[in-house]
Amino acid sequence: CQYETALDPELLCIFGTGDLGRSLGQRLLQSGYKVVYGSRRPHSCGPVPQGAQVMSHAAAARSASLIFICVHREHYDFIEMMAPHLEGKVMEVLIPYCVFSRLVPGAEVVKGLNTLSAWALQNGLLAGKQVFLCGNSAKAKHAVAEMATKLGLTVLDRGSLSAARELEDFPLQLFPQWRLPLCVALGLTAFFYFYLLIRDVLYAYFEDGKDISFRIMVSLANKVFPIVSLIMLSLCYLPGVIAAFIQLYRGTKYSRFPDWLDRWMLCRKQIGLIALGFALLHAIYTFIIPIRYAVRHKLISRMKNNKTTPFNFDNTEAWATDSFYVLGILGFFLYVLLGLTSLPSVGGSLSWREFNFVQSKLGHLTLTICTAHGYIYGWNKFLRPSTYKWYTPPGYMLCLVVPSIVLVLKMLLLLPCVDNTLTRIRQGWERTRLREEEGEIKATNL
Amino acid sequence: CQYETALDPELLCIFGTGDLGRSLGQRLLQSGYKVVYGSRRPHSCGPVPQGAQVMSHAAAARSASLIFICVHREHYDFIEMMAPHLEGKVMEVLIPYCVFSRLVPGAEVVKGLNTLSAWALQNGLLAGKQVFLCGNSAKAKHAVAEMATKLGLTVLDRGSLSAARELEDFPLQLFPQWRLPLCVALGLTAFFYFYLLIRDVLYAYFEDGKDISFRIMVSLANKVFPIVSLIMLSLCYLPGVIAAFIQLYRGTKYSRFPDWLDRWMLCRKQIGLIALGFALLHAIYTFIIPIRYAVRHKLISRMKNNKTTPFNFDNTEAWATDSFYVLGILGFFLYVLLGLTSLPSVGGSLSWREFNFVQSKLGHLTLTICTAHGYIYGWNKFLRPSTYKWYTPPGYMLCLVVPSIVLVLKMLLLLPCVDNTLTRIRQGWERTRLREEEGEIKATNL
Amino acid sequence: CQYETALDPELLCIFGTGDLGRSLGQRLLQSGYKVVYGSRRPHSCGPVPQGAQVMSHAAAARSASLIFICVHREHYDFIEMMAPHLEGKVMEVLIPYCVFSRLVPGAEVVKGLNTLSAWALQNGLLAGKQVFLCGNSAKAKHAVAEMATKLGLTVLDRGSLSAARELEDFPLQLFPQWRLPLCVALGLTAFFYFYLLIRDVLYAYFEDGKDISFRIMVSLANKVFPIVSLIMLSLCYLPGVIAAFIQLYRGTKYSRFPDWLDRWMLCRKQIGLIALGFALLHAIYTFIIPIRYAVRHKLISRMKNNKTTPFNFDNTEAWATDSFYVLGILGFFLYVLLGLTSLPSVGGSLSWREFNFVQSKLGHLTLTICTAHGYIYGWNKFLRPSTYKWYTPPGYMLCLVVPSIVLVLKMLLLLPCVDNTLTRIRQGWERTRLREEEGEIKATNL
Repeated sequence: CQYETALDPELLCIFGTGDLGRSLGQRLLQSGYKVVYGSRRPHSCGPVPQGAQVMSHAAAARSASLIFICVHREHYDFIEMMAPHLEGKVMEVLIPYCVFSRLVPGAEVVKGLNTLSAWALQNGLLAGKQVFLCGNSAKAKHAVAEMATKLGLTVLDRGSLSAARELEDFPLQLFPQWRLPLCVALGLTAFFYFYLLIRDVLYAYFEDGKDISFRIMVSLANKVFPIVSLIMLSLCYLPGVIAAFIQLYRGTKYSRFPDWLDRWMLCRKQIGLIALGFALLHAIYTFIIPIRYAVRHKLISRMKNNKTTPFNFDNTEAWATDSFYVLGILGFFLYVLLGLTSLPSVGGSLSWREFNFVQSKLGHLTLTICTAHGYIYGWNKFLRPSTYKWYTPPGYMLCLVVPSIVLVLKMLLLLPCVDNTLTRIRQGWERTRLREEEGEIKATNL
Repeated sequence: CQYETALDPELLCIFGTGDLGRSLGQRLLQSGYKVVYGSRRPHSCGPVPQGAQVMSHAAAARSASLIFICVHREHYDFIEMMAPHLEGKVMEVLIPYCVFSRLVPGAEVVKGLNTLSAWALQNGLLAGKQVFLCGNSAKAKHAVAEMATKLGLTVLDRGSLSAARELEDFPLQLFPQWRLPLCVALGLTAFFYFYLLIRDVLYAYFEDGKDISFRIMVSLANKVFPIVSLIMLSLCYLPGVIAAFIQLYRGTKYSRFPDWLDRWMLCRKQIGLIALGFALLHAIYTFIIPIRYAVRHKLISRMKNNKTTPFNFDNTEAWATDSFYVLGILGFFLYVLLGLTSLPSVGGSLSWREFNFVQSKLGHLTLTICTAHGYIYGWNKFLRPSTYKWYTPPGYMLCLVVPSIVLVLKMLLLLPCVDNTLTRIRQGWERTRLREEEGEIKATNL
Repeated sequence: CQYETALDPELLCIFGTGDLGRSLGQRLLQSGYKVVYGSRRPHSCGPVPQGAQVMSHAAAARSASLIFICVHREHYDFIEMMAPHLEGKVMEVLIPYCVFSRLVPGAEVVKGLNTLSAWALQNGLLAGKQVFLCGNSAKAKHAVAEMATKLGLTVLDRGSLSAARELEDFPLQLFPQWRLPLCVALGLTAFFYFYLLIRDVLYAYFEDGKDISFRIMVSLANKVFPIVSLIMLSLCYLPGVIAAFIQLYRGTKYSRFPDWLDRWMLCRKQIGLIALGFALLHAIYTFIIPIRYAVRHKLISRMKNNKTTPFNFDNTEAWATDSFYVLGILGFFLYVLLGLTSLPSVGGSLSWREFNFVQSKLGHLTLTICTAHGYIYGWNKFLRPSTYKWYTPPGYMLCLVVPSIVLVLKMLLLLPCVDNTLTRIRQGWERTRLREEEGEIKATNL
């Protein structure tokens, strides 16, 4: 093949002397390659890494077998003019393109390294990073793959260039897995915020004539955040419970889950981390309660008004509030442990059994403790009429619905008979096949 | 060798179409291999990765040279029936087994990839992960090792199959290094909890007739947690001090430490992280003190009862309590820094000298500050008779014993004469050898 | 070449049976090499890894082709005596040296693995770790590189031995990138501490005769920490703004920045993390405010003195303080998110676009919120004469200068005309070249 004769395989050419071209050249030089740059103005193109040469585009392309295109789309016109010089070369295009392969029909185009960035190349964040190579020529892909592996990247073959279109969009998306969970969280926050605004501030204004609008900043926020956090945490464990019931119903583990359930199960980690963020905000809002002006005013006024009445110690109240705080603190502590094991380096250092133990068993324990924290909050208020302003339930009652459902379903799944069946299904047993075989045996016996 | 002729080395066979088999096949396809599945029911075995074929077991095994067994132990009977088809093949058994090699005497069994899990394969957490290969045939091990390296794993040869038994148990253990530290922590927690329960709640009940049992939830917990945290932190640095004294006593660094000391030194990181967890709980329990009902009641009652007495500002008390809090906060902050460098990614980005500086020097500073925090807590109570209820010392006094010992021993080790000797010993100097050589010189001179 | 004949390439020799030599030998044995140790006292040199042999130095060096020197500098004399035995061998010196190459003129010395430590070898923290090899012989370097790659290290060629001197100092520096930011932080802390000490404690002493020196521990610290944190955070984003204006002024992105700006931009991450540390201390100091003796005394005294005066609720004060806390909490929360993405594993799992979004956009949002937190702190105090003790501005006013400058300049950069020009410059457009081309066109037209 023509690029294997008379060309130095260790000489690589880079078109473009910007950040990306210079970072890539630096890293290739460090890995032992020889690098020559092709630039529009070889004599005044700015600094290039030490050890690299700079020539005109045509001269640089002549001697190298593999050419990296690191220029912006706006400058692709010159590449079209250079098409004769690029016949038979392997070209790796690092900048997103649409019609590149039409520009240079005689060259072997390979796309895949465009997920690299100047930043990643500079900071050496390459070890183990995956790149997907697309190209129509196996030899061309092999040449680029060899070089990428020498840089420390893991190369995965993704087929022909037609798959490249999809790959190009990939690094342009911003946190794609977080969009659905963030939308759900923001929706819940907005709903409960306005619900509590009506029940708290507007109720006080219309029923008692008081203006307590200052409460929207801290007091209402410190009710909305724990509500959204608990609901999101239960939404993290609900798909697993639903999936288990689907498997029990169908009697097999080999049929696919519905698409919505698959999608939900894929973003469980993001749902949990958002819930942890809301829990952290709730904790900090709680810590600053006693230094708030409104709280100090209430404390002082209470004493001035009741200065002769002795303040008898209510033991039940002490037990209730202390238990409430203990459950909240322990739940938050376990929550932080769950979040720690979600860090890539910590999770990667655990075995599957350990990771599953933390995320599943400790996770359900966290959900249980936080739900109990919510129940104790209103332990003596569930049956008071004054709790139900304008016949609506308070926010924390609405909040406890989904977690309670998840915990009840999970306890059903822990019943011995149900648990045994589910374990057998997950080890490969199938109810329908059993019936088939029974049917076959019966048919044979007849 | 017969598996190198007439078989496509790029074709791999997987028995089992469950999670593990499908994840492994997906990853092998991505790395460029061809994959064929052997299934009990080739036509309705559920989804297989795109690009893989599904056949009966016998047909699949015929064309491949390397076979992965990814089925549960309960289904091994069919493998025994297939023994003739598996003669001369290399089989990699991914599921724990006991008697597999007896089932298929003619095949070359290699074990090692059973530490992989479907989860790790799916999530690509393979880069750098170590696998230990055992097998009786070097060629077979080499074939599996080549494939494992292409997946990004690091392969270590562990000898023959007889070593496989020990390896199988390895991934089944749950947090093996954490067991001893957790037991110690729980033991200390239980001991101090009951000790303080007796001195605090039972003493008040029997001596003053008061029921202050509500205190067990927050007040007692907030004494037990810092006590256990400080003792665990000092247990983290005590083995290093003991080891230094052992080296000084023996005059050499080449003799082994006792087993118990070795075991202790191996779990220092886990001891430290558990201590950090207790410190974090202590911090959170402290932040919620002012919003507790019991604390507010005490504050309000104090004012009602003493409403005419002026409350003179006690400057010493202000200095003492503020110093107490400052030492606690700074100690906790350094503690968090220590914990951050324990994260795998952060610790891995530091050089040995930097890591040692943080863990050793900053670590001893943290221990010093936290011990001072404990001493200031009872600065004016050590000589009061009322501190010693029923002639027992309070919890914080017991707590300060071990840290003080560690700090005193460490200061002894910092004395110039002791430090010089220890440094020479650690660079290879030996007192006994010196005496031997002196003995030789004397013998020669005689 | 003589070391390629009659020697087993799989046999490596290690001089030195200390920690480093034993750890290196263990890891080489695991990777499949044969290891022989050379020791001064082959029969009583202490434990060596299982599978390795121990001989005298001469015997060990005879059969191996590659020799690792793992002994302390003090013991190099024996190497000089062994020079004849080491002719033609490749020697890798793991311990820093100055004149080693003069000791053994006939051997090929390669230096590079001295960045490894016994600790890293034991803990397997080798995957992807970079080592720089220096040596005068390409074949020697290649032999060492092959072995290093087999251990999982990434090898970079650094040229001849003359570059080794610089490499030796590299692992001896302690946190080199953190020195400048830490000095700046400590300087700011010291300055503001004494500034506030004078304005707060000394002013009260001289003007009012009160001794409020206890305030230096917590009250003053809780003003200094947020001030330093906010200034450091703005120093994190100021160089980016300066760089943008430099590019706008010069009309090109191809000219180098001044050295001081380059150096500043390289330690932005460390500046930001130090600022986060100060913010965390500020948060914790704020949480313990209500349990301080001085704060409780002030609260109680206030009520005793004004026991008949009703305490009217000031709505504006409630809004102001709650907004103040909300801005502080949200700013701190975003700050923690910024810090999380600075963790190597989390940052490495983000794409460049995502990382830039968090660090730049979320970062500027954090700066904005924290600056607003500072403005609200003194919202009604800016025009009061009593704020200016001895005609000096309070600390928080000084603190708001740099952040306000950064935010104003950043808003200038966001103006459409400025932003368009900057984007074109960053994509390669140059104002001077445009003028050159216009000049050329004019010259051509004349």
